[in-house]
Amino acid sequence: MSQPTDVGLLSPVSAGTVAESLTGDDAVLAAMVRAEAALLTALAAAGLAPASAGDAAGSLASVRVDARSLALDATPGGNPVIPLVPLLRSAVPEDVARWVHFGATSQDVLDTALMLVASDVLRQVESDLTVLAGFLASLCASARSAPLVARTLTQQALPSTLGMRAAGWLASVHDAVRVVRTCTTLPVSLGGPVGHGSAFGARGPAVLSAFADALGQRAPASSWHTRRTPVVGLATALTVTGAACAKIAADLLVMGQAEVGEACEGSGGASSSMAHKANPTQSVLVVSAARQLPALASVLGVSAVAEQERPAGAWHAEWQPLRTMLRLAGGAAERTSTYLPDVVFDHDAMQRNLGLLLTALGKDPAWATAEIAHVGVWVDRVLTDHEEVFG
Amino acid sequence: MSQPTDVGLLSPVSAGTVAESLTGDDAVLAAMVRAEAALLTALAAAGLAPASAGDAAGSLASVRVDARSLALDATPGGNPVIPLVPLLRSAVPEDVARWVHFGATSQDVLDTALMLVASDVLRQVESDLTVLAGFLASLCASARSAPLVARTLTQQALPSTLGMRAAGWLASVHDAVRVVRTCTTLPVSLGGPVGHGSAFGARGPAVLSAFADALGQRAPASSWHTRRTPVVGLATALTVTGAACAKIAADLLVMGQAEVGEACEGSGGASSSMAHKANPTQSVLVVSAARQLPALASVLGVSAVAEQERPAGAWHAEWQPLRTMLRLAGGAAERTSTYLPDVVFDHDAMQRNLGLLLTALGKDPAWATAEIAHVGVWVDRVLTDHEEVFG
Amino acid sequence: MSQPTDVGLLSPVSAGTVAESLTGDDAVLAAMVRAEAALLTALAAAGLAPASAGDAAGSLASVRVDARSLALDATPGGNPVIPLVPLLRSAVPEDVARWVHFGATSQDVLDTALMLVASDVLRQVESDLTVLAGFLASLCASARSAPLVARTLTQQALPSTLGMRAAGWLASVHDAVRVVRTCTTLPVSLGGPVGHGSAFGARGPAVLSAFADALGQRAPASSWHTRRTPVVGLATALTVTGAACAKIAADLLVMGQAEVGEACEGSGGASSSMAHKANPTQSVLVVSAARQLPALASVLGVSAVAEQERPAGAWHAEWQPLRTMLRLAGGAAERTSTYLPDVVFDHDAMQRNLGLLLTALGKDPAWATAEIAHVGVWVDRVLTDHEEVFG
Amino acid sequence: MSQPTDVGLLSPVSAGTVAESLTGDDAVLAAMVRAEAALLTALAAAGLAPASAGDAAGSLASVRVDARSLALDATPGGNPVIPLVPLLRSAVPEDVARWVHFGATSQDVLDTALMLVASDVLRQVESDLTVLAGFLASLCASARSAPLVARTLTQQALPSTLGMRAAGWLASVHDAVRVVRTCTTLPVSLGGPVGHGSAFGARGPAVLSAFADALGQRAPASSWHTRRTPVVGLATALTVTGAACAKIAADLLVMGQAEVGEACEGSGGASSSMAHKANPTQSVLVVSAARQLPALASVLGVSAVAEQERPAGAWHAEWQPLRTMLRLAGGAAERTSTYLPDVVFDHDAMQRNLGLLLTALGKDPAWATAEIAHVGVWVDRVLTDHEEVFG
Repeated sequence: MSQPTDVGLLSPVSAGTVAESLTGDDAVLAAMVRAEAALLTALAAAGLAPASAGDAAGSLASVRVDARSLALDATPGGNPVIPLVPLLRSAVPEDVARWVHFGATSQDVLDTALMLVASDVLRQVESDLTVLAGFLASLCASARSAPLVARTLTQQALPSTLGMRAAGWLASVHDAVRVVRTCTTLPVSLGGPVGHGSAFGARGPAVLSAFADALGQRAPASSWHTRRTPVVGLATALTVTGAACAKIAADLLVMGQAEVGEACEGSGGASSSMAHKANPTQSVLVVSAARQLPALASVLGVSAVAEQERPAGAWHAEWQPLRTMLRLAGGAAERTSTYLPDVVFDHDAMQRNLGLLLTALGKDPAWATAEIAHVGVWVDRVLTDHEEVFG
Repeated sequence: MSQPTDVGLLSPVSAGTVAESLTGDDAVLAAMVRAEAALLTALAAAGLAPASAGDAAGSLASVRVDARSLALDATPGGNPVIPLVPLLRSAVPEDVARWVHFGATSQDVLDTALMLVASDVLRQVESDLTVLAGFLASLCASARSAPLVARTLTQQALPSTLGMRAAGWLASVHDAVRVVRTCTTLPVSLGGPVGHGSAFGARGPAVLSAFADALGQRAPASSWHTRRTPVVGLATALTVTGAACAKIAADLLVMGQAEVGEACEGSGGASSSMAHKANPTQSVLVVSAARQLPALASVLGVSAVAEQERPAGAWHAEWQPLRTMLRLAGGAAERTSTYLPDVVFDHDAMQRNLGLLLTALGKDPAWATAEIAHVGVWVDRVLTDHEEVFG
Repeated sequence: MSQPTDVGLLSPVSAGTVAESLTGDDAVLAAMVRAEAALLTALAAAGLAPASAGDAAGSLASVRVDARSLALDATPGGNPVIPLVPLLRSAVPEDVARWVHFGATSQDVLDTALMLVASDVLRQVESDLTVLAGFLASLCASARSAPLVARTLTQQALPSTLGMRAAGWLASVHDAVRVVRTCTTLPVSLGGPVGHGSAFGARGPAVLSAFADALGQRAPASSWHTRRTPVVGLATALTVTGAACAKIAADLLVMGQAEVGEACEGSGGASSSMAHKANPTQSVLVVSAARQLPALASVLGVSAVAEQERPAGAWHAEWQPLRTMLRLAGGAAERTSTYLPDVVFDHDAMQRNLGLLLTALGKDPAWATAEIAHVGVWVDRVLTDHEEVFG
Repeated sequence: MSQPTDVGLLSPVSAGTVAESLTGDDAVLAAMVRAEAALLTALAAAGLAPASAGDAAGSLASVRVDARSLALDATPGGNPVIPLVPLLRSAVPEDVARWVHFGATSQDVLDTALMLVASDVLRQVESDLTVLAGFLASLCASARSAPLVARTLTQQALPSTLGMRAAGWLASVHDAVRVVRTCTTLPVSLGGPVGHGSAFGARGPAVLSAFADALGQRAPASSWHTRRTPVVGLATALTVTGAACAKIAADLLVMGQAEVGEACEGSGGASSSMAHKANPTQSVLVVSAARQLPALASVLGVSAVAEQERPAGAWHAEWQPLRTMLRLAGGAAERTSTYLPDVVFDHDAMQRNLGLLLTALGKDPAWATAEIAHVGVWVDRVLTDHEEVFG
């Protein structure tokens, strides 16, 4: 029987991207270990555990854990933290062992780990979107007056400019950046078995705070074991990111049709059977990501109704959809920021298509020029917003 | 053949609620007319149209339009604005007629109308959540030390308090209020046919601004015909609202089981066949809303990839899911704020169930008391947040 | 405050269609009454109730019930059957009253009613798809050799024929018809409060059988209160129907672009702002339906996990999504069967576009002719299947 | 940076199951190679390629291909078939090389491969469901008269039996088996670049038929590049499978609550923090699968609207959701068939809970006995169906 390993074969939109490597099982496992180490640090800092516990924190990172073994050992207890804890305990001095995982529950460690992974990905996404926005701002400026037929419901509608269309793309990216930034620092989880962290006694808030500090994340006001707003927020940020990228891709797909001919990907994708074709592959891949994100988000949305102190299924259903979303949105952002600058825009084709419209309307070029005379005002508004977002 | 009218028969969670009446076809139609009236006002204010146009704005509201006729007449053109415009033009003085809908496109009017409806609903939701939060804050205080068995993965886990659980509910409602507040003022749309409002010439921004002012909404930096972040934002706010309410309901459903017996709805629902039952009907209805919201949100998420200047299907697919979401989340918020205060909590049962746990663990009551000794710290943190949210 | 009534304003794809009127609240209510009447008939037929109960069945249909009042009265108990039963009891002779709803539970009546409504819609869908398939079969024959550029990933790919493309459309419709036919007779529900129909004693199967006969539906082997395969099956049939129609519409949208020009809707939709445009409105509406169906189906899929003998929320969450799906798929089928025959195909444009491909490839027309020489084989296979489906 | 490999860490429901190994990237890759080999066989069998091509088919299986390299090389062209073809060509004699992938397109190979993988999984699912159904049939018989309180909307409702409940479970499994069987033999794809297989000339149907035979699958009437009914059908089968398993799990979750105590998993899951707990882990995992399946199915449902001869994004969006669904449903079926026989049912607890109901109703045990007197009739109907399904 084959190995059950996935290495990206069915996800070309994310294969080879930074988001992919930030979200692999090894990365998740490393984040789980980071969380357990930070807990040792926090327990010592808060004076609950002896200093030796804090000292041992650093050694956890070097414990060798095989992700596949852990995955298999996770089956009886239902999550990978359960088999991880004894492995970590056996790697620290005997007097420290009891402080490993002290006061925490599996969900604390896995949620904290997934938020660490998510923060890493979202910082990368923000970086990619920043590059993308920079390119789009330049395109707005350079193509500000470049005539283009605007299309609605597939039909040629009125004269516009490529700069105007690019301003729309840029405005979407701004929206995405704003939402993404709300997720680059995320909450840690340390509620303990039922959310009230009773093992920490009166020092619960201090431990929580030290734990968050050790990880560079945020301390929540209260346990979010069953208050999944951070997860729903992430889902929104990733959906908006995917949509902002795929909106550009969707436009390029129409602009790249043979009869339209207004744009083509610089290095069009090969076909396995038709040598003459230059497929708009990157646009297709980005669109494929945006088609999956909202449905995955819906799993997270339903899981936000989590009964009692920790639910029987809702939480377990979150892990894979969330990771897949990080990968798809991260892949879409990286791909778009990479391939868009190589897209070749054909201004002659744009003019030719505009000519078709003028003929259909019985209008002359002067009319078209008048139509787009004030387009720059809107482009400028978006560029002003650009300053606000990145200035 | 029957009339195709829907009056709420299949949606008891929203039947009779304020959200339902705010979102009926008549309400949407009235908002469309409001948008057209505000455009007249804005055109006059910006000096594009004569003062008579502004004067006529008020008369539009009194035009009689039959929603059903409009719905049927919408079929050929694909949206209800197209048949509405001539009806409105015929209701104003001849010299004003040409200014009705001037420079706008159907999507401007319908999007603006749906945002007006959404703002109305979200203000009501905020109001209902405020009442709900107030009740929960009292419950946190009064039940702060009331023992309760915390449950995880359906199992009795550790001692906690009803106040601690209520604090979790309250924290979720705070999250919802915060997100809902970002949507009580929403953008108007006035991009014109292709987003650049060319009919307004250089006065586009002024008209847009006056239009937003006339409606008490927000003027966007640029057209959002194909930048659907406001819609995705709404979907998130409504999903979070539904989840916050349904989290409470889901907990009550477990607490209300015969063998658990910790809570029951004050006026339990009758059964059509079993007179002895007091069904937790309101909880069931609230849960039913939260089960539908995320899937509807996924339609909106996919529609956010809107090609060209106005898309061929994505926008049309938004209307019904958005309206249904407003109704479901609005219904859930109103119901929860109404029925929760009547829920009867049975502290004896909570004690009895705690006794089961102590027996299973071989612990005595003193241990339980110690376990919950510091729970109040977490309750207080949520109450502090309450001051911040509503203070 | 406005009336909360919906009359189709936000759903032009279904406004005015047969599916819309078959699924209105009045139609659902009438089906509920039909179910209660059939139960009287069945009870008498099985010898449980006196003949007078059977005689009274006919009179139920004439009971005046206001759907809106019922919707409002449904709120306390959570479903509209609860307030309906006393209304019906008061309309029959006193000795019959106790037999109204005898042995049934609310879910029996509402599920049976929704299946009646669904059967009605699916028979209409089958009829519409039959008309559509007939037209497509003719198109396959008439356009069998009409050259057309086949397109993949938006790019011109190879020569094909309009007949070949139409055969693809037809094959999808055949698939839909086959699935739809599995749903034109659906199960009734008569499990009683907990599925075992104890009130019927040993005569349960006889009553169930008579109940199904009275309604022209199917008797299930056992209660499906929590075995929702019929609902998931319906969801699949409606999704496949919507997709079959929208596949055609999606192709027409590309073919109808100005630069492609291969097809246009006979009576293109007007624009509210651009008089020159002939929007592909019907295609857009059909696509808008297919974009909503799968998400609604996902609500039904999640509801198929229905705990205990009747679940606390899962069932209540089904009603609206199922009704909306019936309406969207029914609307899509009716619209497609109606507008497609009026679509004008422009064979000159197809030839012109093929010329572009030949130029790009450096090929001559003879090559194109050779490429499509054997296309007819595949068209014939689909036409053979057509005979099997409808023969 | 970490390796991007996934080994099941976030999917304990499928980790270590047969379905997992049948769906790993290596398995998909092997199926792709099988498809290319079968094409060589078919081309030779149909007399298009020389016998040497058929002879070389066997050697393809031994070509070493690294899935990760292929995944990375898939990015420019957008799918893994493009970089695979040259690797395979270089592994066969020079005169055979041109016949590798002859007449096919990437989608043919990947779709055929995914259907091979799906058939493998569904045969395993059928096998697991058969075991499960066998156990349930025994349980129906042995627990036929074992009293149990039936519950509706979380409330105790009426007396029933464990056998009756098990019959409901069994009936759901029967439904699933029936749907799964429609998918154990699936169509191959061999439409060539645009669906008409022009490279095969008049021998297209013969090649298709030989291709299907070589793989033990079905030859479709026509290309399904854009007719995705087989994929939607698979999605339904997997959703129904997941729901049938999760319905059982959901019931066990309620039955396993401390205060109910009617069932517990034989080897309850450990907790990372609470030694006394025996979590119903396997039930939780099975439920977590069913929560993800319908949303993933919705991606496939939307992708069924695939424009032109091959779409720009819809197809690419299918691969991962389909694979994930196979794994989740396969994992759920294997887990359920494995853990259910070890569940311990506590008949004393069932009696005790029934006592609560009798007290609440003021009824005596004789009444309860009468209530369940005829339950066996319904159990028998399901057992009769069992004979039909498996007889």
